[in-house]
Amino acid sequence: MRKILFAILILFIFSSISFGAKPKLSRESEDCISCHTSIHPGIVADWQKSLHSKVTPALALKKDELSRKISVKKVPDELANIVVGCAECHIINSFKHKDSFEHAGYKVHTVITPDDCAVCHQEEADQYSKNMMSYAYMNLNNNLIYHNLIDSINGVYSFEDMKIAHNPPDDNSNADSCYFCHGTKVEVIGMETRETSEGEMEFPILSGWPNQGVGRVNPDGTIGSCTSCHTRHQFSIEMARKPYTCAECHKGPDVPAYKVYMVSKHGNIYSSFGSKWNYKDVPWIVGKDFSAPTCATCHISLVATEERDIVIKRSHQMNDRISWRIFGLIYAHPHPKSPNTTIIVNKNGLPLPTELTGGFAKEYLIDEREQEKRRNEMKKLCLSCHSYQWVEKHYERFENTIKTTNQMTLTATKILVDAWQKGAAKGLEQNDSIFNEAIEKKWVEQWLFYANSTRFSSAMAGADYGAFAFGRWYMSKGIQEMFEMLQLKLNEKKQNEIIMKRGGKR
Amino acid sequence: MRKILFAILILFIFSSISFGAKPKLSRESEDCISCHTSIHPGIVADWQKSLHSKVTPALALKKDELSRKISVKKVPDELANIVVGCAECHIINSFKHKDSFEHAGYKVHTVITPDDCAVCHQEEADQYSKNMMSYAYMNLNNNLIYHNLIDSINGVYSFEDMKIAHNPPDDNSNADSCYFCHGTKVEVIGMETRETSEGEMEFPILSGWPNQGVGRVNPDGTIGSCTSCHTRHQFSIEMARKPYTCAECHKGPDVPAYKVYMVSKHGNIYSSFGSKWNYKDVPWIVGKDFSAPTCATCHISLVATEERDIVIKRSHQMNDRISWRIFGLIYAHPHPKSPNTTIIVNKNGLPLPTELTGGFAKEYLIDEREQEKRRNEMKKLCLSCHSYQWVEKHYERFENTIKTTNQMTLTATKILVDAWQKGAAKGLEQNDSIFNEAIEKKWVEQWLFYANSTRFSSAMAGADYGAFAFGRWYMSKGIQEMFEMLQLKLNEKKQNEIIMKRGGKR
Amino acid sequence: MRKILFAILILFIFSSISFGAKPKLSRESEDCISCHTSIHPGIVADWQKSLHSKVTPALALKKDELSRKISVKKVPDELANIVVGCAECHIINSFKHKDSFEHAGYKVHTVITPDDCAVCHQEEADQYSKNMMSYAYMNLNNNLIYHNLIDSINGVYSFEDMKIAHNPPDDNSNADSCYFCHGTKVEVIGMETRETSEGEMEFPILSGWPNQGVGRVNPDGTIGSCTSCHTRHQFSIEMARKPYTCAECHKGPDVPAYKVYMVSKHGNIYSSFGSKWNYKDVPWIVGKDFSAPTCATCHISLVATEERDIVIKRSHQMNDRISWRIFGLIYAHPHPKSPNTTIIVNKNGLPLPTELTGGFAKEYLIDEREQEKRRNEMKKLCLSCHSYQWVEKHYERFENTIKTTNQMTLTATKILVDAWQKGAAKGLEQNDSIFNEAIEKKWVEQWLFYANSTRFSSAMAGADYGAFAFGRWYMSKGIQEMFEMLQLKLNEKKQNEIIMKRGGKR
Repeated sequence: MRKILFAILILFIFSSISFGAKPKLSRESEDCISCHTSIHPGIVADWQKSLHSKVTPALALKKDELSRKISVKKVPDELANIVVGCAECHIINSFKHKDSFEHAGYKVHTVITPDDCAVCHQEEADQYSKNMMSYAYMNLNNNLIYHNLIDSINGVYSFEDMKIAHNPPDDNSNADSCYFCHGTKVEVIGMETRETSEGEMEFPILSGWPNQGVGRVNPDGTIGSCTSCHTRHQFSIEMARKPYTCAECHKGPDVPAYKVYMVSKHGNIYSSFGSKWNYKDVPWIVGKDFSAPTCATCHISLVATEERDIVIKRSHQMNDRISWRIFGLIYAHPHPKSPNTTIIVNKNGLPLPTELTGGFAKEYLIDEREQEKRRNEMKKLCLSCHSYQWVEKHYERFENTIKTTNQMTLTATKILVDAWQKGAAKGLEQNDSIFNEAIEKKWVEQWLFYANSTRFSSAMAGADYGAFAFGRWYMSKGIQEMFEMLQLKLNEKKQNEIIMKRGGKR
Repeated sequence: MRKILFAILILFIFSSISFGAKPKLSRESEDCISCHTSIHPGIVADWQKSLHSKVTPALALKKDELSRKISVKKVPDELANIVVGCAECHIINSFKHKDSFEHAGYKVHTVITPDDCAVCHQEEADQYSKNMMSYAYMNLNNNLIYHNLIDSINGVYSFEDMKIAHNPPDDNSNADSCYFCHGTKVEVIGMETRETSEGEMEFPILSGWPNQGVGRVNPDGTIGSCTSCHTRHQFSIEMARKPYTCAECHKGPDVPAYKVYMVSKHGNIYSSFGSKWNYKDVPWIVGKDFSAPTCATCHISLVATEERDIVIKRSHQMNDRISWRIFGLIYAHPHPKSPNTTIIVNKNGLPLPTELTGGFAKEYLIDEREQEKRRNEMKKLCLSCHSYQWVEKHYERFENTIKTTNQMTLTATKILVDAWQKGAAKGLEQNDSIFNEAIEKKWVEQWLFYANSTRFSSAMAGADYGAFAFGRWYMSKGIQEMFEMLQLKLNEKKQNEIIMKRGGKR
Repeated sequence: MRKILFAILILFIFSSISFGAKPKLSRESEDCISCHTSIHPGIVADWQKSLHSKVTPALALKKDELSRKISVKKVPDELANIVVGCAECHIINSFKHKDSFEHAGYKVHTVITPDDCAVCHQEEADQYSKNMMSYAYMNLNNNLIYHNLIDSINGVYSFEDMKIAHNPPDDNSNADSCYFCHGTKVEVIGMETRETSEGEMEFPILSGWPNQGVGRVNPDGTIGSCTSCHTRHQFSIEMARKPYTCAECHKGPDVPAYKVYMVSKHGNIYSSFGSKWNYKDVPWIVGKDFSAPTCATCHISLVATEERDIVIKRSHQMNDRISWRIFGLIYAHPHPKSPNTTIIVNKNGLPLPTELTGGFAKEYLIDEREQEKRRNEMKKLCLSCHSYQWVEKHYERFENTIKTTNQMTLTATKILVDAWQKGAAKGLEQNDSIFNEAIEKKWVEQWLFYANSTRFSSAMAGADYGAFAFGRWYMSKGIQEMFEMLQLKLNEKKQNEIIMKRGGKR
């Protein structure tokens, strides 16, 4: 009897310790909160739910290394024993920030960047800088071909006298479309004075704001945005580990990872049981904490066994487990060596990792040995729940899908090239956009939508998506349609020629 | 020690009070339940989970005004101290109901209407009657152009002798399609006698039944259906606050609010953390009860701070926070003044809020000042979690998207008008449906699917949906395709003319 | 006071009993686990969460008959008092398995089949063998027309000299596409020796592996795969009862059951409240355990009332509650009598349950009386929560939708037949595939995507999906497009003929 009562007592005392003790907040952060609690109650409440508001770096460093979320060995002394409040991110690095401004007696900046986070999370910032995502804005914006594709999608078309004119997109349209995920360039473009609840105040005006894209170019010169995945102001590892975070940018038909996952056995297990899993602990224990992988499990997280043997190491350079880049440009190809793909030039002088008619721009891409290495890294994880043969044969199918989808893209491209050569459409040689005519747009869908979707479906075993939903059915149909479009255009052209020849003029 | 035991004791006593005390049920409702528990166990069990089965109006009125769900100041004395059972909805207003009938000694009615609910929820019923949704059936059914669109979608086509004939849809098809969400007209069309477990009984036969559409025309002369969102028989505020309720009718490509939400940062936060939120309390406390808005938060709910300062008032006239109507007919336009849009006639005499070639039927639409007012109302909520500049620039982008998507719709419309004028298709001037030819159907998709989707994606910051999934990509592609369709038709026509001229006959 | 403390004590004791007692594991299974815990920690951890690891058959048989998950009356004595571990499935039936092999002193097999599960779940295995799903591989693979459709989807197309060549798909592509869900043929095609952590070992090489498709042909001669729905190694009834399991194969546009469910009122209730439901108990109590049906509720589960009156019996022959087969081939039709549909030959000698131009291959399909019987079986469940009239009128609409969608398919087919007859396309009479030309692929979408989607939407009251998302809009648009394609082809042909006739040659 007494033991039970004692146990209850301990429970009460324990809970009062863990929840009752006030975390130590810096004076600066206290100042922030004193106003902002009423101005932006949602932000403050959100931060209060975060680990940042509860744990000091010094405490975080007391955990054994395998369990740590903090990756520096030491933080500056003045930060060690206070929790991570507003000021610790929005003030300390302000001297590096072009967007910093005088505000209520402090120099603060709005845009938090990988460098700000690196004070405690240096390793992750370093890895992420080698992740292609950090170059997502630059790789898109500084590539003439991709840029032309953007223009053809986001621009405003007009119609007059049987002609279509394409007006280039404005910045707001781009920021609302491609650059929303890829990131914008955020710069201070002026200052403005506003009446606020605390009187008149001056604020910098930011271009490309708001934005949380993965390759955002920041006012402190860094690239990337941690809040893309570690959503402010909880910065929760739980959230980053759930598939909805990746889905923000990986759901559309060009990169349908989320949709494929959700129709896969893995996604089914997650949907059925995921609400009971542990998303908070580091390392993440396979079998105990979760029964099936989420996106993060395979691509980022530190996974270990119950005996704390490491299955796979954490990495924020996500492609180091990925052997192929399966959203082809225009074919699936070995992963680029450098995250900066603007340096790539193929044999025909185009800024593409593959030739238009197949073949890889090899010198810019990882070789087969590196592919093998990355594949093996990923397989370690698969083997936690699958037999050797299961894993090998899964990869065999996946590699086969890469091959066949590339063949299908080649076929579509050959039809298009034929159309260009026979005057049924205008392409590169005619110095025309390769994205503006109907047959060209159809061709884009062949590789960007259908071949990609088929490959994602194969890579992540979500076959239902790759069959009828948005994969093989449309891929094979599209080729036939492109072919009949070409036939029709050529027949139309020939008839016009015959009629003109016979009639003198039409 | 004693204190702890005392606390446990209090807990036990408290729980036995709140869960143990039997709610007082009317004799009439007891009668209903005595049979229906075995006939429809699911209905009774569902109701037992509802607040209606547990709280009397008198108790509900004891709550402070801000926390109340009941909105009348007083209910009829005979209802005050009994819970809301079967009879309280299905009997008390029966004298107003044309669908009421003798049943087991009572006059009961099947179809519960806003007037029935207004006995306790008058304010919500009043607001909803000013909400365009309440006119969803009438606005669709009584507008010749919309009606023609419905016919072209739900009708049965036949093919004979190289001609397509369109047969108008039957009522069942319409009820299963457009009117499922918009609402049907429910009328008593006869009586039938049926053998039941309680012997022979007589029941009214209802047209348009079952239906829970938002603009249902009810047998008591009212319009609307509270159960569209407050699903019978739990009538749970929790359910109405979750996005799945809105998704029942706002998921398709014409109004993809749910899909956009789910791919937005808000949707991600909801999906990741929403299972831990409090959906039951009134007012709904930002930051404490929830960390990101659901549909209801922005469009309906009473939101307050922890200090119980009102952030935004509850409204069942949902458009009073909405400045633009973004699912265009055929362009996005300022919100109509009246929920009854059948009164609208544009300059060309068409029952549309915009001209076919751009421009608004201004006198029927709210002016810029009212737009500004509604925009500001919504911004109050945004500012709970976002900075002033964030919110302003978000709206700037959104307004820009309205402008550019309207331009894109104009371009598509110009192509179609050209087709009509040049005889490549038949339109209004030829006294033909504007929805029956392939190029016209393509045109419908331009504004109804792609421009709408792009605008939803912009309004709710779900860019992934508005880029490749179902927005700008298809919008720009569609214009090019319409243009090439027109070119082809004109060339075909010209060739035929030349051939006929030259040959005398084909 | 004492009573409370006593209750707490009882609780403690009880929980130590139920969680603390070690289940008895066979020596063979202990052997398996001793190595595989470290080799495949995820598998073992998953199994440990299963009921199999906790309950012996003898204990399972002690439950009252209505609550049992085990369906045999008696298991072999040697299995009765041990839990179901590795060996109990992977060893005991090995003598029947062509894939069995010597492994660490045991004869084991990898592929678990319905016969293995039947040791305890005989009734379910028997029912499933009458379920069309068990024939999913054979019905697809052994039907010339379906096979030709597969080839046209999964094959690799090439383009040379203005000709498209179709190369038949390889086995990996098929296994990654159609056969992923339908099942593959798993056979031992050789042996391989591998270096493992336990030294060199020999393993059988399996064709068509991995696969968990519903109609898998197994190395022991059986067909089907229980793990399609009862995912290894938890084999959880909870998971099978949740809609994500069915979604693995029923989400695409050909059978969009999941998408329709999720947009229906039922799906909304599930999404809003489902996390609070009880998915574990047998029988499943309507109203108490759940408030709205999932897929399993309507199609498989044993449902009862709180008084334990059976509402509907469990069945793994899922079509015994289904009167129509609504994913038409090519029309919706009464359900086939035999799960083996390869025996069906229509009047025109085609292996199809309907004629190309409407009409049923009646002798192979259930008659109206059987349809009525199955419909009534399903209605029992509907009536748990819906009134008689609600249910009747729902079915009236559904039957009407079957009629109108079949009419729409007939219209599309007539256009295609006209195209074949007039030489605008090549079909059966020209001894050509009916799936390779653009107009034929459009025709396939008419019945396989749009008519099916409309019917699913009608059957399960998810109207939003059947209107604009993927139903009536596309169905009516597609007919018009097919018609204009035909017009264009015929005009093109006629012009070519005239030009050729006049000019002697083109």
